[in-house]
Amino acid sequence: MQQRARELDAADPLATYRERFVLPEGVIYLDGNSLGCLPKATPARLAEVVAQEWGQDLIRSWNSADWITMPQRVGGKIAPLVGAQPHEVIACDSTSVNLFKLISAALAMQPGRKVVLSEPGNFPTDLYMIAGLEKQGLAERRLAERGKLVDALDDGVALLMLTHAHYKTGELFDMVDLTRAAHEAGALVLWDLSHSGGALPVGLDACRADFAVGCGYKYFNGGPGAPAYAYVAERHLEEARQPLTGWFGHRAPFAFSDDYEAAPGIEKLLCGTPPILGLAALEVGVELIAEIGVDRLYAKSQALSEFFRTCLAAHGLDLDLVSPTDPAQRGSQLSFRHPEAYALSQALIARGVIGDFRDPDILRLGFAPAYLRFEDMAEAARHLGEVFASGEWQRPEYSQRSAVT
Amino acid sequence: MQQRARELDAADPLATYRERFVLPEGVIYLDGNSLGCLPKATPARLAEVVAQEWGQDLIRSWNSADWITMPQRVGGKIAPLVGAQPHEVIACDSTSVNLFKLISAALAMQPGRKVVLSEPGNFPTDLYMIAGLEKQGLAERRLAERGKLVDALDDGVALLMLTHAHYKTGELFDMVDLTRAAHEAGALVLWDLSHSGGALPVGLDACRADFAVGCGYKYFNGGPGAPAYAYVAERHLEEARQPLTGWFGHRAPFAFSDDYEAAPGIEKLLCGTPPILGLAALEVGVELIAEIGVDRLYAKSQALSEFFRTCLAAHGLDLDLVSPTDPAQRGSQLSFRHPEAYALSQALIARGVIGDFRDPDILRLGFAPAYLRFEDMAEAARHLGEVFASGEWQRPEYSQRSAVT
Repeated sequence: MQQRARELDAADPLATYRERFVLPEGVIYLDGNSLGCLPKATPARLAEVVAQEWGQDLIRSWNSADWITMPQRVGGKIAPLVGAQPHEVIACDSTSVNLFKLISAALAMQPGRKVVLSEPGNFPTDLYMIAGLEKQGLAERRLAERGKLVDALDDGVALLMLTHAHYKTGELFDMVDLTRAAHEAGALVLWDLSHSGGALPVGLDACRADFAVGCGYKYFNGGPGAPAYAYVAERHLEEARQPLTGWFGHRAPFAFSDDYEAAPGIEKLLCGTPPILGLAALEVGVELIAEIGVDRLYAKSQALSEFFRTCLAAHGLDLDLVSPTDPAQRGSQLSFRHPEAYALSQALIARGVIGDFRDPDILRLGFAPAYLRFEDMAEAARHLGEVFASGEWQRPEYSQRSAVT
Repeated sequence: MQQRARELDAADPLATYRERFVLPEGVIYLDGNSLGCLPKATPARLAEVVAQEWGQDLIRSWNSADWITMPQRVGGKIAPLVGAQPHEVIACDSTSVNLFKLISAALAMQPGRKVVLSEPGNFPTDLYMIAGLEKQGLAERRLAERGKLVDALDDGVALLMLTHAHYKTGELFDMVDLTRAAHEAGALVLWDLSHSGGALPVGLDACRADFAVGCGYKYFNGGPGAPAYAYVAERHLEEARQPLTGWFGHRAPFAFSDDYEAAPGIEKLLCGTPPILGLAALEVGVELIAEIGVDRLYAKSQALSEFFRTCLAAHGLDLDLVSPTDPAQRGSQLSFRHPEAYALSQALIARGVIGDFRDPDILRLGFAPAYLRFEDMAEAARHLGEVFASGEWQRPEYSQRSAVT
């Protein structure tokens, strides 16, 4: 398959973008869906923010370097990549904190309804963020399997909250159909785009989503623990209210008045002082993804994952694929079920093929299309074949669990 | 006063620490209480985190670089500087978000009480963070002037929430007395240390505080929008529950279970994925302050501000001081009331003397003792004298307000 991989790489219109990222020697990185690679432009930009804007210009940079509007500016650059208008998106806090804000906003807009509907096995933090509100008596969690979600939409449901691309399987929800069904039942919809934003086209405005959140450190390559983003549909911007009513979400933060008055636009989602270093790194990652374009990225990601499957077959590997076989039905990843998935992932890491293990039995391989080559697919499949053929994954050291995997 | 300043600088045991910070040419920076200066060690540390830990080691750094416990590690380094034990403090999110967590935790521990008592004119975000909970029906805000706080402590008060050093005047609360009074009335106490932590000794455990928050980007020199910190007294660690129940606050985040179970210790205050770049910069700043020591810092800050007052008098300036005249009663700052405080602050900035204006009529000068010299005090007072003598502050451009001041 090496020869075919070289041909595909030679014909790849995105091939040169690989040079815009730092890729460690000897590593095939299939975990960009967990922590995206470092854009080569990021260190210089961060050094500028640190040495010049912080070190030399100090407090003046809130104006002179426009730190004060960075959450809006970075959000505005993410917006077109998720099918939104710039004034509907803001970059701030973590995905989890933004979930809390928007679940709360939805509940406040739905008097008499307090059910937040999701699916079991959704990304844990999404489900957990309902728990705190439930304890406060403000929400009631309801989980239904994906095939039964529409049936579970009764008149108690305030909000349907789902993750567009499933973190484990990569399976995509049909945002158009589910948003319509929820609206017909009187529910609002919150989409978590953490595993799709920046990797594939998302149409928030087109599907008439109400709210959305997403992650900055996966496909947007914003760095470890990068700020997240949050979306409020234009039609809700005036009415929406969130409970983390900090000074940066105030209409006039520097009037220092005693009483809170929410800012009129998307900046009402802000709470505390924005994390400038994190936002600066995120902005570089977002600009690079915007330059490549999500349509092209998704086309390449589908080609990569399909080619990887072809390579697996060529090595006689018939693994238990839990991701949809149709690439149009999945995000930028392939996940396989295997009782020894943990040991397999460790054996691959020892060979420089970095994927992910997800409890209890999933080997998850992400195909960040901005910097991966078809050659990487052929090589990763070859390594996986050798791991099985040699039985090396059975070495005792590969079953020792570490804190994060 | 120049001669006297030189003598004081020569005798200053902290004089050499100035070399550990970046200080722009031609600037006398009296705003370290708004954004602390850049430690010289920070750029190299950040570059290492970015180039090596993120760029080369990628996802593995959660284990190999111990990113996973950075909030606890940095919190543990802040702890002794605010009179706490390492397992009582964690670095995460913003001050505002941490206020929300701890106000909520206090309310949940106080069934039948929902009043959060504070003073008018407290830092806005502290007051604003009550607003969101009030709107949800969970809290009720009560404000009483500082002289009347104890009288306002009735059996409806769940929490007394105050800022140790007032952001505008620098006036200090007696943490021991007020905490005792609140406890006698059955209320819990939350101290905001944003304007005192890292500048003067704070005794959280000694005064039997229940909760505290503080800022990372002022006296701890963590950089713009640095992560904040939060404290929960050991005796409350088991019972306390906060509503931002994200995956990093879970007992076993990587078990990916559907149900939230709070971690047993201070890490239950975590919510989303920690901001590694921000934490790395904060850690450098905290380590430097720890190396100098808060007792020595406070002694110097008092000497600096008293010397500044002497210099003002020598220039015949009799300004309206709103800070306490007794240096033991104030934080590391002096604030003056003047109807043209904004124009004065702008005229000073034009001369390289960077202080702060605080609406509507306060000129606030902060004396971060880690990097300021007595010579800076003499020079700043000379500039202020010249600004008044020349009347240059009346130039029209100095009354143009910008977004942040």
